[in-house]
Amino acid sequence: MSTFERMWADLAPVGRSARSGGYFRQPFTTVDDELQAWFAEECSRRELRVERDGFGNVAAWWDSGGQPTGPGLLTGSHLDSVMDGGAFDGPLGVVSALAAVDVLRDRGFAPSRPVGVGVFREEEGSRFPLACLGSRLASGAVSWHEVRHLRDRDGVAVADVMDGDSGSALLADVGTFVELHVEQGRDLVLRDAPVGVGGSIWPHGRYRFDFTGEPNHAGTTRMEDRHDPMLTYAMTVLAANKQARLSGQRATFGRVAVRPNGTNAVPAEVTGWLDARASSSEELLALVADIERLAVDRAGRDGTDVVVTPESVTNEVVLDRGLAASLAEPRGLPVIPTAAGHDAGILSGAGVPSAMLFVRNPTGVSHSPEETASVADCLDGVEALADAVAALAGEAR
Amino acid sequence: MSTFERMWADLAPVGRSARSGGYFRQPFTTVDDELQAWFAEECSRRELRVERDGFGNVAAWWDSGGQPTGPGLLTGSHLDSVMDGGAFDGPLGVVSALAAVDVLRDRGFAPSRPVGVGVFREEEGSRFPLACLGSRLASGAVSWHEVRHLRDRDGVAVADVMDGDSGSALLADVGTFVELHVEQGRDLVLRDAPVGVGGSIWPHGRYRFDFTGEPNHAGTTRMEDRHDPMLTYAMTVLAANKQARLSGQRATFGRVAVRPNGTNAVPAEVTGWLDARASSSEELLALVADIERLAVDRAGRDGTDVVVTPESVTNEVVLDRGLAASLAEPRGLPVIPTAAGHDAGILSGAGVPSAMLFVRNPTGVSHSPEETASVADCLDGVEALADAVAALAGEAR
Repeated sequence: MSTFERMWADLAPVGRSARSGGYFRQPFTTVDDELQAWFAEECSRRELRVERDGFGNVAAWWDSGGQPTGPGLLTGSHLDSVMDGGAFDGPLGVVSALAAVDVLRDRGFAPSRPVGVGVFREEEGSRFPLACLGSRLASGAVSWHEVRHLRDRDGVAVADVMDGDSGSALLADVGTFVELHVEQGRDLVLRDAPVGVGGSIWPHGRYRFDFTGEPNHAGTTRMEDRHDPMLTYAMTVLAANKQARLSGQRATFGRVAVRPNGTNAVPAEVTGWLDARASSSEELLALVADIERLAVDRAGRDGTDVVVTPESVTNEVVLDRGLAASLAEPRGLPVIPTAAGHDAGILSGAGVPSAMLFVRNPTGVSHSPEETASVADCLDGVEALADAVAALAGEAR
Repeated sequence: MSTFERMWADLAPVGRSARSGGYFRQPFTTVDDELQAWFAEECSRRELRVERDGFGNVAAWWDSGGQPTGPGLLTGSHLDSVMDGGAFDGPLGVVSALAAVDVLRDRGFAPSRPVGVGVFREEEGSRFPLACLGSRLASGAVSWHEVRHLRDRDGVAVADVMDGDSGSALLADVGTFVELHVEQGRDLVLRDAPVGVGGSIWPHGRYRFDFTGEPNHAGTTRMEDRHDPMLTYAMTVLAANKQARLSGQRATFGRVAVRPNGTNAVPAEVTGWLDARASSSEELLALVADIERLAVDRAGRDGTDVVVTPESVTNEVVLDRGLAASLAEPRGLPVIPTAAGHDAGILSGAGVPSAMLFVRNPTGVSHSPEETASVADCLDGVEALADAVAALAGEAR
């Protein structure tokens, strides 16, 4: 059994739901503690030197005999999942990074630049309303001051679970980041390729729609006397889907909260979260504007109100073309875009040249227990990552 | 200040939300404990003899000097509220019942039949999925065996919070029930009458709609590859509203639960609860069948599934016509229907002749902080209730 397979088997039960087979690996939970302990143990096995910042992002450095110098090469991803997510989104990149170090050591390779394995915290934004919170803080894309008051759905603030006031110097000496990730789509299936290289990341955003109406008795209030925000929400869900289909973009309402959420009460308030993605920032703006306009029109007819608040908007990220080419050409890998956000996109936007490798996902499904990849494809990914690290870090002489 | 006003002021802060001004008086909570303690204290002030059954329903008997005999006359209502509900729905009937005893004692009245003040628990079904749970158990409309496994939204079962296995003999000697309630509508406003008498209660039901689809990544999944149950839910919400308007009935989706309920995930499952009411049982059946048919049609187009489960369905209740007339005629009160369910409807269905008095609600709004009634109208209600008790219990000689 490869070290990749052993690590994968060790991680498999952590945070897994017996009911759905999906994963609940939210940050700052006991499951998160288990994941961190697993990573610390793997670093200890390999004698990697672990650095940790105030938010819990980790970089574990390979202090090879070659006495590496110059800007570091970091490779890794994240361990957290969406709620009821898959096993691969995040952990595949961390396990592959550790396995790539093993492959390079087996080859007798000693890097001339420092090589490290990175784990960013709360990439999914499954708890706080800002995805890639860890890498945004580590790269300076956001400040502690800006995010410390963000709250999860139970009202717990970022500052309540973590003291990040000291800032992060984790990436101070990092010159390049490479993230391997399971593909979230079927591009590689259609191309019949086990591994691909990331070209660009679609612009995307999260927008909170607060619909307010007049709470009332569901039995005694005549239909014509109602101001029911659930109706405005429902029409907006359908409008978002239609606009995204018409424009060839993506729009989803996957999360909703209702107050008071009682069977026999016309709601006072319905809050829906729109996830929107588009092939350009202009398309994204136009899509969200169309959805907002239709929501406001319907609110006028329902006698309700709607207020739209962007919670996070990320512009298009074109990953470093030279890096992408240097990863793709030696192995003849295809270069593909992605509509998902990634820590590599955050680091790239913050001035750290970054690259991505994708591993084929037969179902194309992600953020779900159906997400998958074959062992053979994963091992191909490890080899591709080891080659990339070797090429980018260079052999010590 | 009348005893009514003093009691009302004592109750006002219990379970009140500072944010909305609404009430959160769910059963088997510390707020419920406070309400029960308040009622015990008021009974003690009046030397009422308190009986309590295994579910926490209470009847407090006025052991007057007249040595009353024969079947008892119970009057009262409930103290629990919907989530973020109003102050009046329930407590107005309990406070008015206690105040009516005070009025009768001030008049020097001694009843020939036993007179008691009743409080039923969990009338709203705000916690467990069956409204009027307390009066259903006390009247034998449901058995402990049938309801002990019902669970609240946190998975806590009825049997976990209450030992009702011993059954209830609370109503064994009750021959008549009178419930005073705030009106949940504007019938009395339009009739310019402070108080009315209940004629009938519309049939109504709660139906759970479980929509299931294919969970997936909200960014990377093409719109045409989705099986999104949120779309089916949204269309069903709009269809329910439209069908209710077309047929002159009532249909509401006020409660929803989504799994996993993440911003960047196409949901696996959306559950919505339909509250439906109609002027006849046939109309109710037809309304729910229409909504289900439209939901199933849409599910076919979305590639999702929908399963509809009735959680509780109550047929039309025509309250005792003789009783209603005996309350209405002496004071010239109008007789009006209601689309809300009540403990009086449950007792009536279980063979206890029951009557209702309604007090005018200027906003017509209920299950909301906007629910209201003037002190003058409430005191009119107390007088009407005292007259009713006097007439029904008869004067001891």
